[in-house]
Amino acid sequence: MTAPRPGDDGRLPHTDGIPYGGDYNPEQWPEEVWDEDHRLFARAGIDTLTVGVFSWSLIQPAEDTYDFTVLDRVLDRAAAEGRRVCLATGTAALPPWLAKRHPEVNRTDFEGRRHRYGQRHNFCPSSPAYRRPATALAGRLAERHAGHPALLAWHVNNEYGGACYCDLCAEAFRTWLRERHGTLDALNDAWWTTFWSHRYTDWDQVEPPSALTEHWRGPDHTAFQGLTLDYHRFTTDALLGCFLAEKEAIRAHDPDTPVTTNFMGMFRPLDYHRWAPHLDFASWDSYPPLDAPPTAPALAHDLTRGLKGGAPFWLMEQTPSTTACRDVNPLRRPGELRLATLQAVAHGADAALYFQMRASRGACEKYHGAVIGHAGRADTRVFREVAELGEELRTLGGATLGARTPARTALLFDWDSWWALETSDGPSRLVRYQDTVHAYYRAAREAGADVDVVPVTADLTPYAVVLAPVLHMVKDDLPARLEAVAARGGTVLATFLSGRVDEHGRAFPTDVPGPLAPLTGIRIDEWDARREEVVNPVHLGGLTADARLVFELVQPRGAEPVGTYGADFYAGTPAVTRHRVGEGEAWYVATALDRPGVDHVVRRVLARHDLVGPYAGHRTVETATRVAPDGTRLLFLLNHASEPVRLTAHATATDLLTGEHVERDGPLTLGPLGVTVLRLQ
Amino acid sequence: MTAPRPGDDGRLPHTDGIPYGGDYNPEQWPEEVWDEDHRLFARAGIDTLTVGVFSWSLIQPAEDTYDFTVLDRVLDRAAAEGRRVCLATGTAALPPWLAKRHPEVNRTDFEGRRHRYGQRHNFCPSSPAYRRPATALAGRLAERHAGHPALLAWHVNNEYGGACYCDLCAEAFRTWLRERHGTLDALNDAWWTTFWSHRYTDWDQVEPPSALTEHWRGPDHTAFQGLTLDYHRFTTDALLGCFLAEKEAIRAHDPDTPVTTNFMGMFRPLDYHRWAPHLDFASWDSYPPLDAPPTAPALAHDLTRGLKGGAPFWLMEQTPSTTACRDVNPLRRPGELRLATLQAVAHGADAALYFQMRASRGACEKYHGAVIGHAGRADTRVFREVAELGEELRTLGGATLGARTPARTALLFDWDSWWALETSDGPSRLVRYQDTVHAYYRAAREAGADVDVVPVTADLTPYAVVLAPVLHMVKDDLPARLEAVAARGGTVLATFLSGRVDEHGRAFPTDVPGPLAPLTGIRIDEWDARREEVVNPVHLGGLTADARLVFELVQPRGAEPVGTYGADFYAGTPAVTRHRVGEGEAWYVATALDRPGVDHVVRRVLARHDLVGPYAGHRTVETATRVAPDGTRLLFLLNHASEPVRLTAHATATDLLTGEHVERDGPLTLGPLGVTVLRLQ
Amino acid sequence: MTAPRPGDDGRLPHTDGIPYGGDYNPEQWPEEVWDEDHRLFARAGIDTLTVGVFSWSLIQPAEDTYDFTVLDRVLDRAAAEGRRVCLATGTAALPPWLAKRHPEVNRTDFEGRRHRYGQRHNFCPSSPAYRRPATALAGRLAERHAGHPALLAWHVNNEYGGACYCDLCAEAFRTWLRERHGTLDALNDAWWTTFWSHRYTDWDQVEPPSALTEHWRGPDHTAFQGLTLDYHRFTTDALLGCFLAEKEAIRAHDPDTPVTTNFMGMFRPLDYHRWAPHLDFASWDSYPPLDAPPTAPALAHDLTRGLKGGAPFWLMEQTPSTTACRDVNPLRRPGELRLATLQAVAHGADAALYFQMRASRGACEKYHGAVIGHAGRADTRVFREVAELGEELRTLGGATLGARTPARTALLFDWDSWWALETSDGPSRLVRYQDTVHAYYRAAREAGADVDVVPVTADLTPYAVVLAPVLHMVKDDLPARLEAVAARGGTVLATFLSGRVDEHGRAFPTDVPGPLAPLTGIRIDEWDARREEVVNPVHLGGLTADARLVFELVQPRGAEPVGTYGADFYAGTPAVTRHRVGEGEAWYVATALDRPGVDHVVRRVLARHDLVGPYAGHRTVETATRVAPDGTRLLFLLNHASEPVRLTAHATATDLLTGEHVERDGPLTLGPLGVTVLRLQ
Repeated sequence: MTAPRPGDDGRLPHTDGIPYGGDYNPEQWPEEVWDEDHRLFARAGIDTLTVGVFSWSLIQPAEDTYDFTVLDRVLDRAAAEGRRVCLATGTAALPPWLAKRHPEVNRTDFEGRRHRYGQRHNFCPSSPAYRRPATALAGRLAERHAGHPALLAWHVNNEYGGACYCDLCAEAFRTWLRERHGTLDALNDAWWTTFWSHRYTDWDQVEPPSALTEHWRGPDHTAFQGLTLDYHRFTTDALLGCFLAEKEAIRAHDPDTPVTTNFMGMFRPLDYHRWAPHLDFASWDSYPPLDAPPTAPALAHDLTRGLKGGAPFWLMEQTPSTTACRDVNPLRRPGELRLATLQAVAHGADAALYFQMRASRGACEKYHGAVIGHAGRADTRVFREVAELGEELRTLGGATLGARTPARTALLFDWDSWWALETSDGPSRLVRYQDTVHAYYRAAREAGADVDVVPVTADLTPYAVVLAPVLHMVKDDLPARLEAVAARGGTVLATFLSGRVDEHGRAFPTDVPGPLAPLTGIRIDEWDARREEVVNPVHLGGLTADARLVFELVQPRGAEPVGTYGADFYAGTPAVTRHRVGEGEAWYVATALDRPGVDHVVRRVLARHDLVGPYAGHRTVETATRVAPDGTRLLFLLNHASEPVRLTAHATATDLLTGEHVERDGPLTLGPLGVTVLRLQ
Repeated sequence: MTAPRPGDDGRLPHTDGIPYGGDYNPEQWPEEVWDEDHRLFARAGIDTLTVGVFSWSLIQPAEDTYDFTVLDRVLDRAAAEGRRVCLATGTAALPPWLAKRHPEVNRTDFEGRRHRYGQRHNFCPSSPAYRRPATALAGRLAERHAGHPALLAWHVNNEYGGACYCDLCAEAFRTWLRERHGTLDALNDAWWTTFWSHRYTDWDQVEPPSALTEHWRGPDHTAFQGLTLDYHRFTTDALLGCFLAEKEAIRAHDPDTPVTTNFMGMFRPLDYHRWAPHLDFASWDSYPPLDAPPTAPALAHDLTRGLKGGAPFWLMEQTPSTTACRDVNPLRRPGELRLATLQAVAHGADAALYFQMRASRGACEKYHGAVIGHAGRADTRVFREVAELGEELRTLGGATLGARTPARTALLFDWDSWWALETSDGPSRLVRYQDTVHAYYRAAREAGADVDVVPVTADLTPYAVVLAPVLHMVKDDLPARLEAVAARGGTVLATFLSGRVDEHGRAFPTDVPGPLAPLTGIRIDEWDARREEVVNPVHLGGLTADARLVFELVQPRGAEPVGTYGADFYAGTPAVTRHRVGEGEAWYVATALDRPGVDHVVRRVLARHDLVGPYAGHRTVETATRVAPDGTRLLFLLNHASEPVRLTAHATATDLLTGEHVERDGPLTLGPLGVTVLRLQ
Repeated sequence: MTAPRPGDDGRLPHTDGIPYGGDYNPEQWPEEVWDEDHRLFARAGIDTLTVGVFSWSLIQPAEDTYDFTVLDRVLDRAAAEGRRVCLATGTAALPPWLAKRHPEVNRTDFEGRRHRYGQRHNFCPSSPAYRRPATALAGRLAERHAGHPALLAWHVNNEYGGACYCDLCAEAFRTWLRERHGTLDALNDAWWTTFWSHRYTDWDQVEPPSALTEHWRGPDHTAFQGLTLDYHRFTTDALLGCFLAEKEAIRAHDPDTPVTTNFMGMFRPLDYHRWAPHLDFASWDSYPPLDAPPTAPALAHDLTRGLKGGAPFWLMEQTPSTTACRDVNPLRRPGELRLATLQAVAHGADAALYFQMRASRGACEKYHGAVIGHAGRADTRVFREVAELGEELRTLGGATLGARTPARTALLFDWDSWWALETSDGPSRLVRYQDTVHAYYRAAREAGADVDVVPVTADLTPYAVVLAPVLHMVKDDLPARLEAVAARGGTVLATFLSGRVDEHGRAFPTDVPGPLAPLTGIRIDEWDARREEVVNPVHLGGLTADARLVFELVQPRGAEPVGTYGADFYAGTPAVTRHRVGEGEAWYVATALDRPGVDHVVRRVLARHDLVGPYAGHRTVETATRVAPDGTRLLFLLNHASEPVRLTAHATATDLLTGEHVERDGPLTLGPLGVTVLRLQ
């Protein structure tokens, strides 16, 4: 399966404005409730419904029986009222009869236990007994609904994820390995199997890495990283195979309607970059954790936008009020929903959809927030906010559709590095990929830079700055492409634990940071790791930042020290370095700096390229730019504080939401959680 | 199986005084030890022995072999020395031969693992291979020992609990479901199976809810609450079926001797209210956790008393000194055993039994406290306290036997609500049923009110005050009966997360709190949840209480605010409300108040009915009243402090333990951990 | 299998100096890397290589195929360059073909799950399908390499450990039980099976104690301690049987070369005392946990030395820089490696070996420290320290070889007590065997006493002081032998939770501390346990120490109080007692004292025998004495602080490392982490 090609931006469903609505499951309700639903949809400006996500057992109640009655009526009614439908294939949750008749469709878990019927996302991707009827269902749906006036997009399956460890998967894995490695010798070399007497002499000897084979303490502790890495890739491809089979079945009947599946942002189990070329457009479900900073969903937005070369994406799900699955499920405060939705638009979302339209009465999501609650009321705070936001989106109209982000800063995001880092024994289990990536992303965003979050295969020529935090694995020609960034005057920044392993998770037989050593101009022989509570002060010019967790001992080999450790036996040695390369620079940060430290380093890097934004002094104010296909430049200003903020406008513009004029150097006030969408002149 | 009928109080074994003694396992010892035991029993006033609890393998060493030799001698010796025996059927721990020959008698656990022989409480309740010999054993014992002069009561099995997930149980569950739901359509509707594509088309497709099917993270996280609720009920009934089969086998030979089984207070796995009608009398084993306040065992006493309509019960087990099964097992301090025992009597216990008479030499309870330790001494502190307490109980004689608690306050305790609340996703996993129930119970008890802890089916006409904390599930005619309480001038108090679901765990399709909305005069559209450390101050007149965890946003619809939130976007809105209904009131507490907050609210409610006790100002002094069959009124005063407390007597009385006279308005002193049992005049 | 016989000291490989080197796996690398390795070995003074530890799959790639090519070349090259080889049999990690062809060679874990191929230390010890080829492999290796000039020692398997719970092990366990107990009646009595209806009527009914049978919450919670104790012993013997089979196969071809296997210090799963007689010499792998005090590895050194009656042992593995398997893997600071290595020598190590020579490129140990890193450099700090240490060891030459420790203090270390204590329910799960043993060991060592850590079967006549911390199980004639120590003027010290159970884990049917009661002159009827945060101050003359966790209530029966509790209802009663016995004393410490408390008690005991060392006032300075076969007395002084320490020499001596002369009463300075090896005159 191929990597994303530059410029392969896919194709979004055509709409005149931002599609607004979300998941709708009328099949759970009697028809009188449908009437109420539609009256309320009209009041809230709902024009788009995601339908059929978990309706397999309804549509196919037995192996040879299909019943489209309910679905037909849902689509027809939508069409009759001028709404569009994102139609799901419904294959993400097995119907009970299938699980009972073909027990092998149920997954075998990491502990080696064959499951019985239950939950959702519960199918074995290697089981023909699953693949065959799932694909058939997608085909039947396309056959019936292709060309339906309500049909806007196809939504294959749902939130793909998880892994299976059954014998069918073991067999499929071995086939996958043959294709990847060619010979057993190559596999033995790649996985370094001579260690611990693992030299395989027959493909048949390879077992999926699980609690019964190579793992202990769970999925992150494996005797053979190479094996575990390959199983992550295999699982990605196995589920992608399910997607492709359904997409192909749809395409047999419907050559045009765009096809997607809903992703989950930074979701470790699946390498979305392997999927991206196969989607017509990207979409994702945003459920930021309790107390996450606003840069957390922003990073996921930018990652999703990066899947299709910067093309806009759909926000496929978010909650209008609360989640249910967390231990503690707080309410979205007044104004938070509007702010989060417009933040998504600011980052490239061309749709704003909710989970869900009406709250389920039963089962595990009955307390999940919904546009319409159990009592079916319009006079609730949540419904009111949804309706007002619908109004605002209509005001925006199509202004943002198709608009791109003109980022000059790239952040490399790499599932292989994530897996390699977090399945390694040593130096520290406390280093988490997402934390470090987020730290550098946040620093760049809070400095006012637009950031593209891209795969390591991306074309780097558009960028002045490339951030490569904890890029543990370095593959292919990436070092050369990074060197080219610096050579033409750009800046590359890498951190501790970058450049450590090759594509098989093997240490490079050279100085650390491996192929990044020439670029960074340093050599590392040893690295210390300490518990969370141990702090080493790092002196960075005037600033002293706290460093924690990992402390690499850096020997400059061309680079100059920018910051130095203040304690321990390596006090005085470099903690941050800069290497002049051609017209550019390569920075290396050898330890986990605290937030002021990362901010300091990133702002120095951005400043060199004049990429610090005009409102960077206002910590709570987020900025994001989109450029419409006609060249119109839109600047989103989002105030994440519950206090108003008073700015001085850096340009003359018009607020698209209020129609008000803003004068350069004039006052510009954002209310609590306030948003302004400025059309710059 | 039927709910308890009002007035169905069962029948206690007839004794002249409070039976005193406990579990006795002489079969573990050579006969010379028996002699020592009996000499010490005499010195300690022990008159009752629970015998045979784990003696199946001794009595039936092979499928066709019974050997009653040892048991006969134990009973004969007891009779010869004037002691009575509570005779156990011994079916709670399998004999090894049975587990080996019929592996299906061993349980399959929540993780889907068929166990092998080990531990106790280890039988599958649905297995005929267990049920048949267990029932036969009970019958044989009754055949042999009915009419034995020592026989005082039957003790079936032991501490029933746990669940099995084997195929036999799956089959039995499906049969149970057919009886309960009638049709698959009804079941699909009850469990809301259209959600996540679960519509069953054959009963055979239903699987027990386990880690292999609908659950994740353990027993509290289920995709389908309706299914899990029904499995809790099924398990309750399956184990009850075992009990009933044994009871029936006993009754074939012994029509009269009262039959019980020992419960465990607030034990979540089994709905004891479903069992209660089938016991002749209730009994329980009291092992309060380390550092539990005295209201913890008191609540369990009152719950146990509520099982049989207020009739006295037996304290079947408690430790004379320490437990062994806890991580840390502290000693009962001097005086604590006496205090705890008389507290049990104060709450309705008509027996005081220990686990155990003599400490086991081996296995996991060898360090569990016992009346007689490993060295067989009488000159230990523990033996001395046991003997002195025996003396005091003889002084009390039959004064308390059959006496009832004249409570005017009821607290609704509901296993269905417990299960529904704690298996729900959202709003907060931090809300625990027992904590909230205990908070309201404690407030009422510390205010001096006697409290009946009753099922939701109980007759509420005797009560002036009905407390309904976290009554998550509301069924049948309860709303009407609660409204009747208020209508005739009483007070009903409900809290946050009450009135949320119907008997299947489905949200009501109406405003929250569902069927309690008319009574409480409020409407709730949304609810916030926050981590433990987030506090919202609630203003309650002069008092500001801390509120935590869940914050419901209340809109009065007839009710008046009594307390208001002090923070967050809902500051100023009601946190506590009162609704005048007919002559009475309905209170609603929308958040988890701290102890002063709950005390304030509960005392206001009690004060309205003049139910705050005369010693309510003394926080460490517990009071409890019992009214003997002849109308004699006994007031227990228990000082839980290790300092003495000086009171002014509120009535003229005689202390039954000392014979001393107490004058109204005269001084009344309780020593450290002191107890007075006053016969009021 | 027999206990160590006094004087059975085995036999170490003959060398002229301290063997220096470690694990070497050239089979993982191309030959050009071998050349680099050997050049670096020469620079670092490496003369000993442990070879073949995980090479089964390399040497035997199929059931009937052996290939010694690589191994031959490794040995030949070693010989050619004058190095010696510790040759491993390589049976600790299965080859894949064996696991695939004979699935029963894979272990069944504590959860009852049959594993599939993966990891290492993964074989079922009872499986003939494992035992047969493993033994054959050892035989083949001996046949081929016996007499090879490089061969210095045999290293059977690797770090034996873990347990298997399969049906083959169950069957082997039953056979083992028949031999041990003779009759089922004896077994029923030993395990006290009448408790909970466990009387077995057929050996076949006995199941291994696992999560599916007698255990809950993991390996420490068992219904029947006797069964679990016996399974620990059985597992020890089953793995020992594997070792013995391999050793016998070696001996068929090589009657002389010493045989060992590498132990792991205080490793709970295996009773190394049962193994000790069967090793020619002892060896162990030292990986002290992060932040362990220096007495932690010291205790393990002394335990290992005690395995062979005080004979020197080999330090078979340690890391030259970092570990990889911990959550956080800190670097050894400059000088720490030297200090740790010389500490090992000070305690009796006659070899200093590393894991590993060259860092693995792949799999879970790729970040484990190595003498030669991935880049193959000599100019790293770690390589430099290794080389300098090699130089120093050459300076020492053979001075320490065969030298013994002239300890007059013994500490009893007993796996049975460890198992019995930590699998007991009650009184406190917070008491951990190693913690208490270490507390007393540390106190004695910091007071300057050399300590032999010996089994309870050891000859105690050489000792003036015998420490018996938490000696939970007391067996055989130990009480008499301890009494003899006191009778002839020595001092015995026992602590809380000593003398509680017999060899089957049964409580003694006498006063606590059972058979130690006459010796200690006390009686204990009850014991309190409290959470970690509860402190009871114990008054010890001028000192008040904090006591925690367990508080036994001691009644003197001949003993006199030395310390008393300061709080709770037992305030004023003895917490520490001393009993004069003949010319000697028996001390009892009834609670877990803090470090000052233990120091105080232990120093008083040592002082009585003049065993407090001359540098006991310097807390960071460790002393250890070795006496060479020619009577030369060597005193090691080790400064564990990172600051220098200035001492006054207590004797005239020569520093063997520097050749400098030290004058009695003259100054003697140790640098930061400094070491001096003084030859006393």
